[in-house]
Amino acid sequence: MAGQAFVTLATNNNYAKGAMVLGKSLRNHKTSRKLVALIGPRVAETSRAVLRKIYDEVQLVDVLDSGDMAHLAMMKRPDLGVTFTKLHCWTLTHYSKCVFMDADTMVVSNIDELFAREELSAAPDPGWPDCFNSGVFVFQPSYETYRKLLTACMEQGSFDGGDQGVLNSFFSDWATADISRHLPFIYNLSSIAIYTYLPAFKQYGHNAKVVHFLGKLKPWDYVYDATSKSVKGQTSGMQPNYLLQWWDVFSSSVVPLMKEEYSEQPFYR
Amino acid sequence: MAGQAFVTLATNNNYAKGAMVLGKSLRNHKTSRKLVALIGPRVAETSRAVLRKIYDEVQLVDVLDSGDMAHLAMMKRPDLGVTFTKLHCWTLTHYSKCVFMDADTMVVSNIDELFAREELSAAPDPGWPDCFNSGVFVFQPSYETYRKLLTACMEQGSFDGGDQGVLNSFFSDWATADISRHLPFIYNLSSIAIYTYLPAFKQYGHNAKVVHFLGKLKPWDYVYDATSKSVKGQTSGMQPNYLLQWWDVFSSSVVPLMKEEYSEQPFYR
Ligand SMILES: O=c1ccn([C@@H]2O[C@H](COP(=O)(O)OP(=O)(O)O)[C@@H](O)[C@H]2O)c(=O)[nH]1
Ligand SMILES: O=c1ccn([C@@H]2O[C@H](COP(=O)(O)OP(=O)(O)O)[C@@H](O)[C@H]2O)c(=O)[nH]1
Ligand SMILES: [Mn+2]
Ligand SMILES: [Mn+2]
Repeated sequence: MAGQAFVTLATNNNYAKGAMVLGKSLRNHKTSRKLVALIGPRVAETSRAVLRKIYDEVQLVDVLDSGDMAHLAMMKRPDLGVTFTKLHCWTLTHYSKCVFMDADTMVVSNIDELFAREELSAAPDPGWPDCFNSGVFVFQPSYETYRKLLTACMEQGSFDGGDQGVLNSFFSDWATADISRHLPFIYNLSSIAIYTYLPAFKQYGHNAKVVHFLGKLKPWDYVYDATSKSVKGQTSGMQPNYLLQWWDVFSSSVVPLMKEEYSEQPFYR
Repeated sequence: MAGQAFVTLATNNNYAKGAMVLGKSLRNHKTSRKLVALIGPRVAETSRAVLRKIYDEVQLVDVLDSGDMAHLAMMKRPDLGVTFTKLHCWTLTHYSKCVFMDADTMVVSNIDELFAREELSAAPDPGWPDCFNSGVFVFQPSYETYRKLLTACMEQGSFDGGDQGVLNSFFSDWATADISRHLPFIYNLSSIAIYTYLPAFKQYGHNAKVVHFLGKLKPWDYVYDATSKSVKGQTSGMQPNYLLQWWDVFSSSVVPLMKEEYSEQPFYR
């Protein structure tokens, strides 16, 4: 399946840590697809080196320095910076189909079956469930779609200030057109759902395939104690503890790659 | 459309107030369908009299005193009391199709178009969006379905202790089978969604058709000042203010009926 890839995005060193864990979680669960990381210019060379050990492609996406349409769009709507960067995934036309995954997601199971889906497939957003959550979605790279998305973005902006608003306005029949475009919620399980409707999580959560650390606080914002395998200041002992699972992948699969690269372990606290 | 009805449930005088507002909101928006209220034995005669002025049918549902299968089920699972009562709506076989609505819902628009949908149609639950919310659903009365539901309820219980768990386990292919069974979220708009994803509410909320006061605090738990048209202790001035709309229907459409019935206005504070 050389023509298919998982794609993520990291514009800074923190999100790069997320991308490392995501990439490693995909490898640990033996994906047969390619892995692509889009990175912004602020990602340090040291982080890039680690990402290159995990991803098949690490591609610099720099809308500010390019003279193309994205640059123009960016000038008109500077508030939508990261959004424009994310839309760049549609330019990966050397792949026929891709699955975009936020850098704050982690797979807990092989999810290669997602490539059987068509553009645009995504899971509902808890909160406003007639919108899809743009943390995990199946898409088909295409310059034409890319141009249309940028134009829509420039002209109508984003109702939520981010890529989720733009993508939902663009793929506006997602809620009503075709059930096969609805990914099961277990492909984009966010912590918010666990708290909002705990009985459903207890009933269906064991089938989780992708965990999404949606919201302000990301896994890398916590302090982890590798000896006791615990996270400082963490809230109640929710089982299964996805935050600990993230840190487990980070310390067992990512840190060794960092150590190979530098002796002083610059990211690991 | 004599064969079709909106159905609600109230097991006590408080939920009966909700049923009154719901019924009046349906009438105010000129529904052409029948209105049915299922009530429990604890609903006072005074409340029943008011309900009868709004609803075409007010039917006493008393699982505890009946000698049938519901009684048996109830003995085995006393924890599911209100749930068993709600399932009774399937016994309304003199209608060919019905829309069940929680007593804590209110329509803000005519929704007769819902009768074009088939069993079981419902809107996604914000929180765990692969479950439907059981506050508004289209169903087809049938003794056979009723018996099967009771059996499922008795044997497997409810994963959330209520009717929503039972119904989601029974109609388990809702999330994946047929997009036409997904009611748009605006047919069951709950306040929780407004807070969780405010930009989406600002974008799509003006199309709201049914408001659902899901959660612990119900409209009738607030204290309303009819002179200033304000609710005591109310949180931030969310626009549109559905809570005030509920109280407006209550004071303008329900209170006059209560006054007709009794001089001392027993429910109105
Ligand atoms: O400063 C940023 C913010 C976001 N992102 C990327 O955009 C995605 C969406 O942002 P985020 O996950 O923070 O939003 P949430 O899922 O919490 O709404 C991230 O996962 C990253 O892939 C990024 O690279 N840098
Ligand atoms: O003591 C009760 C509890 C519930 N109900 C009925 O069951 C529905 C579901 O309960 P509720 O709306 O309180 O649950 P929520 O929507 O907040 O989850 C109510 O709207 C009523 O129609 C009732 O009649 N008496
Ligand atoms: Mn995210
Ligand atoms: Mn309710």
